[in-house]
Amino acid sequence: MPQFALGIDFGTNSVRALVVDCADGRELGTGVVTYASGDEGVISDPHDNNLARQNPADYEPAMREAIAEAMSAANVNELAGIGVDTTGSTPIPVDQNGTPLGMHQEFKGHLAAYAWLWKDHSAFAEAERITAHAREKEMPYLAKCGGVYSSEWFWSKALHCARTAPDVFNAAHTWMECCDFVTGFLTGLGTNVRRSTCAAGHKGMYSDAWGGYPDRKFLEEISNGLATLLDRLPAKTYTSDHRAGTVPVEIARSLSLPAGTPVAVGTLDAHAGAVASGVAPGRMVKIIGTSTCDILVGTNVPDIPGVAGIVEGSVIPGLTGIEAGQSAVGDIFAWWSRVCGRSQGELSKDAEKLRAGESGLLALDWNNGNRNVLADPLLTGLLVGQTLHTTPAEIYRALIEATAFGASKIIKRIEEHGIEIREIVACGGIAEKSSLTMQIYADVLNRPIRLSRSSQAPALGAAIYGAVVGGVHKDVQSAQAAMTGFRDLEYRPEAHSAGTYQKLFEIYEHQHDAYGVPDLMPVMKRLLRVRTLSR
Amino acid sequence: MPQFALGIDFGTNSVRALVVDCADGRELGTGVVTYASGDEGVISDPHDNNLARQNPADYEPAMREAIAEAMSAANVNELAGIGVDTTGSTPIPVDQNGTPLGMHQEFKGHLAAYAWLWKDHSAFAEAERITAHAREKEMPYLAKCGGVYSSEWFWSKALHCARTAPDVFNAAHTWMECCDFVTGFLTGLGTNVRRSTCAAGHKGMYSDAWGGYPDRKFLEEISNGLATLLDRLPAKTYTSDHRAGTVPVEIARSLSLPAGTPVAVGTLDAHAGAVASGVAPGRMVKIIGTSTCDILVGTNVPDIPGVAGIVEGSVIPGLTGIEAGQSAVGDIFAWWSRVCGRSQGELSKDAEKLRAGESGLLALDWNNGNRNVLADPLLTGLLVGQTLHTTPAEIYRALIEATAFGASKIIKRIEEHGIEIREIVACGGIAEKSSLTMQIYADVLNRPIRLSRSSQAPALGAAIYGAVVGGVHKDVQSAQAAMTGFRDLEYRPEAHSAGTYQKLFEIYEHQHDAYGVPDLMPVMKRLLRVRTLSR
Repeated sequence: MPQFALGIDFGTNSVRALVVDCADGRELGTGVVTYASGDEGVISDPHDNNLARQNPADYEPAMREAIAEAMSAANVNELAGIGVDTTGSTPIPVDQNGTPLGMHQEFKGHLAAYAWLWKDHSAFAEAERITAHAREKEMPYLAKCGGVYSSEWFWSKALHCARTAPDVFNAAHTWMECCDFVTGFLTGLGTNVRRSTCAAGHKGMYSDAWGGYPDRKFLEEISNGLATLLDRLPAKTYTSDHRAGTVPVEIARSLSLPAGTPVAVGTLDAHAGAVASGVAPGRMVKIIGTSTCDILVGTNVPDIPGVAGIVEGSVIPGLTGIEAGQSAVGDIFAWWSRVCGRSQGELSKDAEKLRAGESGLLALDWNNGNRNVLADPLLTGLLVGQTLHTTPAEIYRALIEATAFGASKIIKRIEEHGIEIREIVACGGIAEKSSLTMQIYADVLNRPIRLSRSSQAPALGAAIYGAVVGGVHKDVQSAQAAMTGFRDLEYRPEAHSAGTYQKLFEIYEHQHDAYGVPDLMPVMKRLLRVRTLSR
Repeated sequence: MPQFALGIDFGTNSVRALVVDCADGRELGTGVVTYASGDEGVISDPHDNNLARQNPADYEPAMREAIAEAMSAANVNELAGIGVDTTGSTPIPVDQNGTPLGMHQEFKGHLAAYAWLWKDHSAFAEAERITAHAREKEMPYLAKCGGVYSSEWFWSKALHCARTAPDVFNAAHTWMECCDFVTGFLTGLGTNVRRSTCAAGHKGMYSDAWGGYPDRKFLEEISNGLATLLDRLPAKTYTSDHRAGTVPVEIARSLSLPAGTPVAVGTLDAHAGAVASGVAPGRMVKIIGTSTCDILVGTNVPDIPGVAGIVEGSVIPGLTGIEAGQSAVGDIFAWWSRVCGRSQGELSKDAEKLRAGESGLLALDWNNGNRNVLADPLLTGLLVGQTLHTTPAEIYRALIEATAFGASKIIKRIEEHGIEIREIVACGGIAEKSSLTMQIYADVLNRPIRLSRSSQAPALGAAIYGAVVGGVHKDVQSAQAAMTGFRDLEYRPEAHSAGTYQKLFEIYEHQHDAYGVPDLMPVMKRLLRVRTLSR
């Protein structure tokens, strides 16, 4: 049996292919290719900050090139299996063959026919409608997604398309999450591919607790279109230790892959990254990049208000996957770097010299709304404590601290529901690049933080699923034991800073509740209303 | 009788001499000289942001040069009179001749022996002590200064010196406000010069309402030192339509002035500037520079809580002078320009393109504390509403708007006490240089704003007092009628912006009270406490 697996990771800006040795997780070959369209693959609209799309025509050529590079670098001819992870919720309207409508001549350049990228917030009104309707009808559908349905998710986006681009919506045979679209393409099964429990569960209100997707009547009351979309979705979804199918000859040839290779059911990037970082009961994985995703697994997990997703088997089959996160982390640091015109390297160097608390500043990390635990995209940033002597580096540090406090708020909420978090493993760009951020996180969270050994965690996680469906390892946990590890570097909390941050966290919580709970002080919403009226 | 008057204006960074024609206010010659010491005259302490001093040895050589330039440019040999204005409260410990202790060899370089510049906040604890004691003893002394004694003022600074530099305090024969020190020097009368009602009233709790300075027992209960200082202060003060004295021969020779020229009692720069800008009942003058000073005159003026000073005759003898202000305005704009690394010109150009309210931002203008109406130096800045798309120019505009809202808060408070404000006249650096700021002010204050004709208003105001003591005009109002005027340019409120700003002002007031009234949300104080503990 071949000992190698391929993981394919479709990110926001590029696709990464990674060939690994299933015996020990050694990374044998990598290929990374940036998407051709938009700004590094992201198509935006200067008149609508909420819009973010990808051109589905970018996926296949980028993937082909990345796979060729990885296979050639690894110098392997055989693969035990292939796994795929993508961003999500990134739903795509497709025809009955599974071809994205955006690739039809008819809809070329029509952004509604493109992939609705995870960070697209166009559908905020639709998300509010879905949340309100579920509450009004006292339906359970929000119990597994923290009590609020997001503007970033499947049904919100499809509904926004139905309302604003009915031509596209009506032409779609069905909508597929990006990870299902890719496995459908790789296996030649198109819309008939086994769809991802992870994507459907975390983004589509799919749960065994109520027998799958929300019921037809509920969706029909919101919009007739959603009910017809439901009719085009399969009733059953699969965890990623199942095969989606195998690579047929013609696809194998075009992608320089061994024909007949098993392909695992698709998954989401954060979940795959967590698997590769050794997620386990009591050990949370934080993927810290432009935004942050927290992944945990457990047993007997109750509903947790304000935590974005609780889905059986979404990370490790047999355990309940818990997903939470912050809608902007590295994005906030990059924003500040742009605003103050200093590089993050320069800012970090100065910010490292500061002691916890000495700037007198406190920020809220809501420049892109709050995903958890408030689940409110219409919140905005706050900075308090400025004097005439406040420096750019002090503000930079306050913004890092703010994201750490936001992370602390999530951990606190999960622990309040009986799920213990003893250890933290970090991965992602910020975790690898910013020792300043990681030390602040260790101090604020008052826990040691280790780093995932792989710097390509999502692709490695996908490869791990590939190794499982290829039969090299009997299950995900055995594969993790063989194929994952930590680096030697560990960030340990420093007692004095941790003490100061405990005091600052109390003030953060005060501000969090004052601005985040609308009845107390809806200042941010009032400002957004003035902004809308001023136009 | 000579028809010319000289105004000498001692600012934060430089001294300005101005020779004017008393018939029409024409400005015939000007000299401006920057002080030699520190950073453009301001001596600071890198370890103590609160400290700001001037070297009293700088005053005489700078004044000599400025007068020579102005007299020579004006080409006049005779003067009807001289007026002097200075920053304040800028008290100076002096010996019995009126020579500043900082000019003694013994105290050379000892900053406590220097001039305690208006913006020095070292004495915040002493100010709190004085305020608390007046409240505890139910004494009336705060009734004319808004209910809170400031860390910027005479008694606070003297007390801080007594506590932290007793060698200087004990060596001082008396303390003189800078304007009295200068008139003492010019007249050769030293400590025997007639002291300023304006300075004593606005900064030293001097009022006819309680027979002069606070009583000896009250001061003694705070500190024995203050009681002995009281013993060295004259019981009576004078308005600036009185002569302080005349220039003796030896001083006249050294300063190239006509000997025997009458010198008016000293005054403060803002009050002089208001006179030159046509201040009158119903017409408020705003001097908008690094900080802002609002000056108004009226009759039957009640005590106004939160308004910094109400002093009989301090601006126009016979009318009650009202002073209020904001502790940082241009300073905040300059701070932001430094932080974001863009020039104010560039920021203004971009900010001008924005509509009121469209950024979704709101700021509090408290980076240097709040002078009025909260009178709390330990408040700090706030910015709310940031997204990942917020630009430096949007923040710049939000900061300008914040200072306008702060200005609006002061006007509202004064009007609530029955003093009407129909018109606004602006002068000062920001008023002259930033049309963006002035238009925002017109829109936020919803009143037309005119500009003072003179761009050297404080010096012209001083010259007006000089013209009065020289007998050219019978009183200040007649002199104003002859010697002052407005520019043609007028900023008129634009209805749509004014409407938007009314909505934003409601949110500003909400934030103002939430952060400014300690019992509601003492977030800024809590952060300052953490900052102190972190050191």
